[in-house]
Parts: sequence; C-alpha cells; structure tokens
Amino acid sequence: MDDATTAFVVSQGEELLTGLTVDTNANHLCGALTRAGLRVVGAATAGDDRTVIARALADAASKADVVLCTGGLGPTEDDLTADAVVEAFGGELALDEEAWSQVQARYEAIGRAMSMTNRKQALLPVGSDVIENRLGTAPGFAIDGGGARLYFMPGVPREMKAMLKERVLPEIVDRFAPRAPLRHTFRVMGRGESQLQEQLGALSSTFPGVILGFRTRMPENHVKLAASSECPVWEEAKAWVRERLGENCFSEEPDEELAAVVGEMLVARGQTLALAESCTGGWIAHLCVTEAGSSRWLDRGFVTYSNVAKEEAIGVDSALIAAHGAVSEEVARAMAEGAKATAQTDWGVGVTGIAGPGGGTPDKPVGTVWIAVAGPDGTHTRRLRLGRDRTSNRRFSAWIALEMLRRQILRRAS
Amino acid sequence: MDDATTAFVVSQGEELLTGLTVDTNANHLCGALTRAGLRVVGAATAGDDRTVIARALADAASKADVVLCTGGLGPTEDDLTADAVVEAFGGELALDEEAWSQVQARYEAIGRAMSMTNRKQALLPVGSDVIENRLGTAPGFAIDGGGARLYFMPGVPREMKAMLKERVLPEIVDRFAPRAPLRHTFRVMGRGESQLQEQLGALSSTFPGVILGFRTRMPENHVKLAASSECPVWEEAKAWVRERLGENCFSEEPDEELAAVVGEMLVARGQTLALAESCTGGWIAHLCVTEAGSSRWLDRGFVTYSNVAKEEAIGVDSALIAAHGAVSEEVARAMAEGAKATAQTDWGVGVTGIAGPGGGTPDKPVGTVWIAVAGPDGTHTRRLRLGRDRTSNRRFSAWIALEMLRRQILRRAS
Repeated sequence: MDDATTAFVVSQGEELLTGLTVDTNANHLCGALTRAGLRVVGAATAGDDRTVIARALADAASKADVVLCTGGLGPTEDDLTADAVVEAFGGELALDEEAWSQVQARYEAIGRAMSMTNRKQALLPVGSDVIENRLGTAPGFAIDGGGARLYFMPGVPREMKAMLKERVLPEIVDRFAPRAPLRHTFRVMGRGESQLQEQLGALSSTFPGVILGFRTRMPENHVKLAASSECPVWEEAKAWVRERLGENCFSEEPDEELAAVVGEMLVARGQTLALAESCTGGWIAHLCVTEAGSSRWLDRGFVTYSNVAKEEAIGVDSALIAAHGAVSEEVARAMAEGAKATAQTDWGVGVTGIAGPGGGTPDKPVGTVWIAVAGPDGTHTRRLRLGRDRTSNRRFSAWIALEMLRRQILRRAS
Repeated sequence: MDDATTAFVVSQGEELLTGLTVDTNANHLCGALTRAGLRVVGAATAGDDRTVIARALADAASKADVVLCTGGLGPTEDDLTADAVVEAFGGELALDEEAWSQVQARYEAIGRAMSMTNRKQALLPVGSDVIENRLGTAPGFAIDGGGARLYFMPGVPREMKAMLKERVLPEIVDRFAPRAPLRHTFRVMGRGESQLQEQLGALSSTFPGVILGFRTRMPENHVKLAASSECPVWEEAKAWVRERLGENCFSEEPDEELAAVVGEMLVARGQTLALAESCTGGWIAHLCVTEAGSSRWLDRGFVTYSNVAKEEAIGVDSALIAAHGAVSEEVARAMAEGAKATAQTDWGVGVTGIAGPGGGTPDKPVGTVWIAVAGPDGTHTRRLRLGRDRTSNRRFSAWIALEMLRRQILRRAS
C-alpha cells in the first residue's frame, strides 16, 4: 500500500463551517476513492474566502497525487473556486467555450432564463479540462497544479456523485491505475475495544502487511483488516481472527446488521419471533422491520409500556408485577413467554428496564434492565447494569436482546 | 464579527478518510462553536498517522485561537493523539494521576476488568488539564500550544457531546467571552425546501442583516435565521417567518422532536395514545419512547405485521383484510380504531403500507401507505404515494403519521 496513489479531499462552503450542513460529500468521496484503491491522506474544509481556499488547494496538492474538491462552482459571489485555483497555481481565467455552451444548453433544457451572472460559471482557469455536469448548471473542471491532478465538482450531492462516477473516477483509474486493496470486516458483540486489542493486537506482527483497525458502534465493535492486493497471508490472517472471535462475531459482511443475521437464522429454521418491549419501546421491532422480508420471521411486537398493557396484551399476571415490580426477572420472563404464547411463535423476547432519567430507586437504579428470551427449550434471562443515559440504555438493551436471541438460536442448533 | 474568536476543528480517524464513517462530530462542533459566537475558520481530517496528526494540529493552532479535536484517545495502538501533541508542540508524556484515577473509577463503575493497555489512556502531555469523560473510559484533556488553546475529546459522539457541553464550551466562553450571534430555528413539516424558498426568500431583503438558511431532514425542513447580536429587526423578522409558516411549524426549539411536541400536547390534555404499526414496524413507538416521560402519554403499541396479528391483537376483522387487502384505507382505519379501543386510549394511530422492495402490485405499488388517526371526534385517513426506498418509505410514514396526529389534536383544541 506504500506506493498507492494518494488523494486529498477539499470541501468548500461556509455552511459546512457554521454547522448548518453535514459534509456528506467528503464521506462519499473518501469511500469511493478508497474502494478504487487510492489512499486518502487527508481532508480539509474551507469557507467562502478565496485566499483560504487557495491555501487549502496548494496544501492538498503538495500532499497527494489527486485532489478532489467540491463546491464553489455556482454563479454567485461566494463561489470562488476558479479564482482560488488561479491564486494557488498561477495562470488566469478565460471564458471556456465548451463550458459556456454546456451552461447555455443546460438552462435551455430546464426552461429557465439565464442571467449574465451565469457566464461566471464558464470562466475557468486556462488549461482546464471541462467536465460536463449532467444534472446541474455548473460545469466541473480538472487541471494540473502543484504536482497534483485536481478535480473540481459541484457541491450539490447528486450532481457531484454523478460526475464522480461517470467522469472523474474513470479518468483517475485511467491515469493512475490504482490497485484496489483487500478489506474485510468482522462485526462483533460482547467484546470491548480494549479486549479486542488485547486479543488481536499480535495480528500485524504475526501476519506482516495486514493492518488491523477497530470501529466502535456501541455496543457493537467492528474489527477491520486491510492489506495490499498481493498480500500472501490474507486468508490465514482472516482465519486467525475468525478463530479468536468465535461466536462473538455475528457477521463478516460489513453492512449486515444483527437483526438481519437473526432473521436469516430464523428463516433457515422456519421459525418465528414475537417481541414484548417496555423500555426499548419498539426499537427492537424497528430494527427487525428495517430488514426487507422481515414479515417472514417477525410475527408481531408489543410495546407494553404500562402495567395494564403488559397484563392485557400478553397476559402478564398483575400479581407478578405487584410482587416483584415491573422491572424484574419474573416480569421479563412473563413478557417473553407471554409474547410467544399469545402470538404462537417459536421465540419470544421480553425487555423491561429503567431507561431514565426518572424512575430509578436505590434497589433498581436507572440503567437496570432485565431481558428474557423464551424459546423451544425454555427461557433464559439476563440482568444488565447500564448507565444513566436514556438513549444509550435503550440502545444497549435492544442490541443485547437480539444478541441473546442469536446465542440461544445457535445453542439449539448445535 | 471580524474580531470574533476563531476556531479550527480537527477530526482524527482512519475510518473518516476511508469513508467508513461520516464525520458528524465536525458538524456538531462547528454548529456549537458558531452558536457560541466563535468563527470557525477551517476543519481538517487526519488519519491514524502521528506525524500527519501533529502537522494538522500545528497548522490548526497557527490559524485559530481555539482548536477542537476529536478521536484518538482510546487504548489501542491507532490512538495517537497524545503522542501527536508532543510531536507538534514539544514536551513529553507522563502518567496523569487524575486521569488514571478517572479511568480506574470508570471501569469499576461499569464492572469491567481493565487491562494494562488502559493505562495508555492516562498518559497525557505534561501540562495538560484533564477533562473528565462522564460517559466513557477515555479522559479528554486541554493544553496550550502554538499560540492556541487546544481541547481533545473522544471520538464517540455521545461522549464528545457531553464533554463539549458540560466542560469545554463553558471553559471557552469563560476564557474568550465570545459574543453569540442571534439564531433561531423553525422546524417544519409539510413544506419542501423550494416551497419554503419561494415563501421566505424575501426575508433578507425585507430585514437587512438577517440571514436565511435551510436544512433538510426529510420529511422535516428546518428554517434557520441568523443575525449579529445587535440586529434591530430580529423580533420582527421572526414574527414575519412565523406568520408565513403557520401550523406547518411544529416547533421553534432546534432540538425538539415531533414526537416530543405530540407528547407535550397529549400530557397537557391528559390524553393517551395507542399505536398499531405495520410497515413502520415499531418506528413510531420508538420515536415516542425516545422522549423521556413517554409513559405518561404512550399507553402501548402493537407491531401487527402479520394479518393474524392484526386480528388477534387489535381485532381487525379478517373479512375486511380479505375484501380490501391489508394495505387499504379500511384496514388502516380498523387498526387505529382497534388500537384505541383495545388500549382504551383517547387516540389511536394505524399505519399499513408496502415499504418495499417486494410486495408491490400494479394497483398498490411499493410506496403505497395508508395512515389513520382515530380520536375523540372520529377517524381521519390519508393515503401516501411514496418512492421505492424501504427505509425512506418507513421514515416518511412514521413522521407523517405523527404530524397527522398533531394536526388532529390541534383541530380538536380549537
């Protein structure tokens, strides 16, 4: 990877620096460049100031082979890209006939009157190669400067994405012939980042050339491997990690969610699920229904927030609630079993807890959660002691409930 | 604003440059700093390379009074922040006793075993001020360097946000006394960005010095006003916008969610809600329970995914489903009324639709959704014709159902 083509991403726009807009363009560009085999060495954001933009461009060109820049191509005064290119790399602006005819054609196509300010969109640095904007009025352009190849694209995401895919990436691949690296992801539940570091830290020394990375998406952790396309120990390294993670790894597909894994397991077994959620309040159901085809395995869900709802909807005995409290092992068990019995499914999950900020007691502080998984062979329960943050308590409870269900399905299969 | 305190944001993490993660931290920081009255002059992203991080920090410190940095504070090898600070500004690392006791206390609180690698999290540049991380194990720190004041926070968004709000921003305000500009947000349902542009575009010419901005969070749109702290027409400008938006504006609190508004209205009226969700699959319940205190107004929810579930749980007549199909006005109405009757609440909401990608027919293509709101005065229904994307169809359905409920509650009150 050391001789990989390097890239730098520059985003322009005052709205990015005031926090009004999330810079999803930079993320899209970084992902696309990485997948194409380039190594992104940095990203920068500049506001609407010509000199600041010029410095960012010069700095980027000094650090990378390819610079991708978005924004600042429009007709208004705060669109300063072409000026900044001249300030950064010298030269001058001139009306580009090709760009000008593209701007005119585009306005004609959308049936809008053009003002003279639109001429500005065709004033490009001399020596530029125009890049047609199929979806908008501002043409892009490419130019050599500061030892790098720079590409300028509009800030409107769909215009940028189309231009990147259809014109810019093909040219980059043609010019630099980057070689796409090997990448692999293990999605993990039940192990923290420092535990994983301890368990897997020896990877890079054991398998030279294989890079280990972590990503936390609490309570999940993702273990990421990367290597150059010629890495001779790639398969061995993956097997080494796989063995160490064991059942904690629920998927090796980077985008496969825990609920999708559970759903696939249930479909494969012809089994169904019912949910009874209190503190998670429909989040588990939402995670399940996010997956296409969930109607094959999720029969129904109950959000039984009140005690009366627990009794009426899934038959939780009010005496049980009176004796042990709504947040208790007994009630979680009754919820899971009640959901399963009511819906006549193979599996039932019950979650009851104190998400906070209110409702805690010395005995059962905020963050106390009971989860029960009822299955063909009986019911398993678990108590969680979480923190004080409502959303995070609910999130952990939902994820851990799905993970408990996955483990129980696995147990039964083995 | 020309003598405003300046700020620079540095995000660390290879996952940002490979496109694996969208950098929402930078956006949050830019917004918070701008609201506090600082001028953000740039943002940069650095990967997991000590020298690159060090250069980014030195560059940022040379350009701004305050540098906010996220990421790289964890226990693993690719957490390089403290090292990079020393490389950028000199000095050395030492075990910080305060930080170390915070790390230990934190592990104790969550009942996890600590490994020796966690000691790394307390190795800070000499001269740092430790910043407690109330929600995670990695302490933050602040230090003077390169003429700037630098703050280092964890990359986990919720930990960063809490630390920023509780510790970092107060210190910045205390040290630099920035003058906060005037800002106001109108959260809007039922009007698109171009409609809003047309309706409100004259704002800046009518009220000089008031800046108009839009932010789309589909299907919501947020209208944002900003002005310097001395703007004489600020209140008039807000009233002008308020009048034009009318009932489409559901909140003027930037962080107040639609579900929270609905919940407050119900609590004020002593009324309760029950939900029957098919294609939204618990998402509406999840939005409600996200709000603290939702037990006061959300009685229960049913995720009635299968037809049998619709019959058994909320008494939807199977003949109705046979005659009109599960996705029909009649079934949506029966779901809303069935949920309301079963739970004996004041309001019931029913949503049934074809989220996709499968299940569409020529008559009822993917994106067909029926929503019903049953209330004290009867039931209102609405048909949506949405697109082909499952998640976006479910999202629109959930939001529009809550908005329909809000409108019905408003109607009844007036």
